[in-house]
Amino acid sequence: MLATLLAARPRFAAAAARFRSAAAAETWYVGGRSHRNATSVPLSALFDKLDRGLTGICLYGLAPPKLATDPERLREVAAQQVARLRLLAPDGLVVYDIQDEPGRGEQARPFPFLPTIDPEVYAHNALAELAIPKIVYRCVGAQPREVFSSWLDSLRGADRHLSVLVGAPRGRSQVPALPLADAYALARAAPNLMLGGIAIAERHVAKEDEHQRMLAKQDAGCRFFITQSVYDAASTKSLISDYALSLESSGRAPVPLVLTFSPCGSTRTLEFMKWLGISFPRWLENELRHSTDTLARSIDLCESVFTDVEDYARQKRLPVGINVESVSIRKAEVEASVELYRRLSSRLGR
Amino acid sequence: MLATLLAARPRFAAAAARFRSAAAAETWYVGGRSHRNATSVPLSALFDKLDRGLTGICLYGLAPPKLATDPERLREVAAQQVARLRLLAPDGLVVYDIQDEPGRGEQARPFPFLPTIDPEVYAHNALAELAIPKIVYRCVGAQPREVFSSWLDSLRGADRHLSVLVGAPRGRSQVPALPLADAYALARAAPNLMLGGIAIAERHVAKEDEHQRMLAKQDAGCRFFITQSVYDAASTKSLISDYALSLESSGRAPVPLVLTFSPCGSTRTLEFMKWLGISFPRWLENELRHSTDTLARSIDLCESVFTDVEDYARQKRLPVGINVESVSIRKAEVEASVELYRRLSSRLGR
Repeated sequence: MLATLLAARPRFAAAAARFRSAAAAETWYVGGRSHRNATSVPLSALFDKLDRGLTGICLYGLAPPKLATDPERLREVAAQQVARLRLLAPDGLVVYDIQDEPGRGEQARPFPFLPTIDPEVYAHNALAELAIPKIVYRCVGAQPREVFSSWLDSLRGADRHLSVLVGAPRGRSQVPALPLADAYALARAAPNLMLGGIAIAERHVAKEDEHQRMLAKQDAGCRFFITQSVYDAASTKSLISDYALSLESSGRAPVPLVLTFSPCGSTRTLEFMKWLGISFPRWLENELRHSTDTLARSIDLCESVFTDVEDYARQKRLPVGINVESVSIRKAEVEASVELYRRLSSRLGR
Repeated sequence: MLATLLAARPRFAAAAARFRSAAAAETWYVGGRSHRNATSVPLSALFDKLDRGLTGICLYGLAPPKLATDPERLREVAAQQVARLRLLAPDGLVVYDIQDEPGRGEQARPFPFLPTIDPEVYAHNALAELAIPKIVYRCVGAQPREVFSSWLDSLRGADRHLSVLVGAPRGRSQVPALPLADAYALARAAPNLMLGGIAIAERHVAKEDEHQRMLAKQDAGCRFFITQSVYDAASTKSLISDYALSLESSGRAPVPLVLTFSPCGSTRTLEFMKWLGISFPRWLENELRHSTDTLARSIDLCESVFTDVEDYARQKRLPVGINVESVSIRKAEVEASVELYRRLSSRLGR
């Protein structure tokens, strides 16, 4: 797979150039209204919120299609996603880097792992015509140092670029893997690269040090955080609380915390989300398992979890945003993610 | 201590008689208004709610004074409590049975254990003039079978009587102690005794079987449940969820679940509550520890926890009530419990 990714990389610069020129001239037609989409508007909206550490960042997240997808189907999928995202008009698009994680728990993966198209390539090539900033995840622990360094080199002279660096996936001890701290240190050489980090409330429950990791990542250059899917309001509020207290005691300013939400339309999706490490309070899991309409119930529950967490973050004066995704590619769940995005973004004044 | 309690028991029948006659003629003056307090009114209010399994039971809870309290001080304390409770006019008064629990956790008890006056004696003797039903806790695991049986005998021919039976305290293996199941079986011989049980959400987090214990207690005759202090909304909702699901699947009706709330005015009280087994989500514990007014913050938090849990119980069509107590005898904390009782009971339409 690595060979394929490296082979695909040279397309990136060309894709980025196309992306800029296409976006600059683009006009969006949404619901019969014409939205002149000068690139500077949505791009600057996200960068402005990040630069100023504002609340209200609204993102949509997706994983790239499987590597084995045939080219025609790939074009269809990308076209659908572009159309959907133009309607939603989020501040930015998150593209995940899906890695196999054989070491995750004792349980078998509920869905088989299939490698995906490289997220950078998918974001900046297949979705090039979508003129919104892309925040691309990069699993630095899954690649050699040289790959990361040459990627940084490729960014020289480019526009501002957004990435979320992620450590080694569980159970994968690739040698020579790049430690996350080393990746942050190397990334300082790319001043136009704006970095985000992941923040995991579930990890905070067990170790009570996730807020310290966040501060360390902030010191290493992180300008925002993205959580995994939030279904457990209490653990997320606990992380927010400890983060806010440690900012206060160290006299530092917060960076935006982007809360991820994903609909859950079936017990199979639920099992997959649990396997991914997402925690569900028992009552909430019962609600999903025993609902006559799991999907509708899940987006209602996501909305109330968001309301609870957002209210608490506001009390703590922490800027929050949203990132809505579907962990499933089932049409109903993807459509529910669109509905959920609309509800949550409207709660953030969009 | 046991000898003292047994010596005190004969006073119970006389106290009960006094209690009935005093209550029958009593008039309450609350805020300048005269409330004719025919015994039947408040007594029947609670029994009516219990008999019909209604929502909205409002209780106030207290522990008896220490056994070493001198008689004059004891009269003062009882008079203050009577005055306070007349103003509050709850449906009933809960009187706890405080036992030493050397086996609770690894940590030392934050406050030293001192034996208290027997709760039956305190409720029906010292507080005899308070004409509301008393729900008296009885730790059956801490006494021989004969003591329990003779207490049941003493109830023959008396009015309806309310008690919450509790098993052996941790770390106390008194031989021959009475198992809780045996106590329930013996209590069937006292038809005028209405029993409640304890329901502990924190135990449900660890074992996920507290709802089954509740059903078994219901089968054994429990007509209501009282929780320990609720600061963890999620675990309480999880217990409610599993209880509601198991009622539905077994075709049984719920009994009222009385949710206990206690203000927390200091980190010392917080440590004591944690030692008692009360769980605090980390964010909520942070709020208490870092507030400039811990006591006021705690009653705000209790109110929001109650609102969350009560809303969920309503969705599940479970009748809930409240029981407000102060685990501390500090004046400020006792006064805060009065304020908290007012707020929560008004949310239940009082």
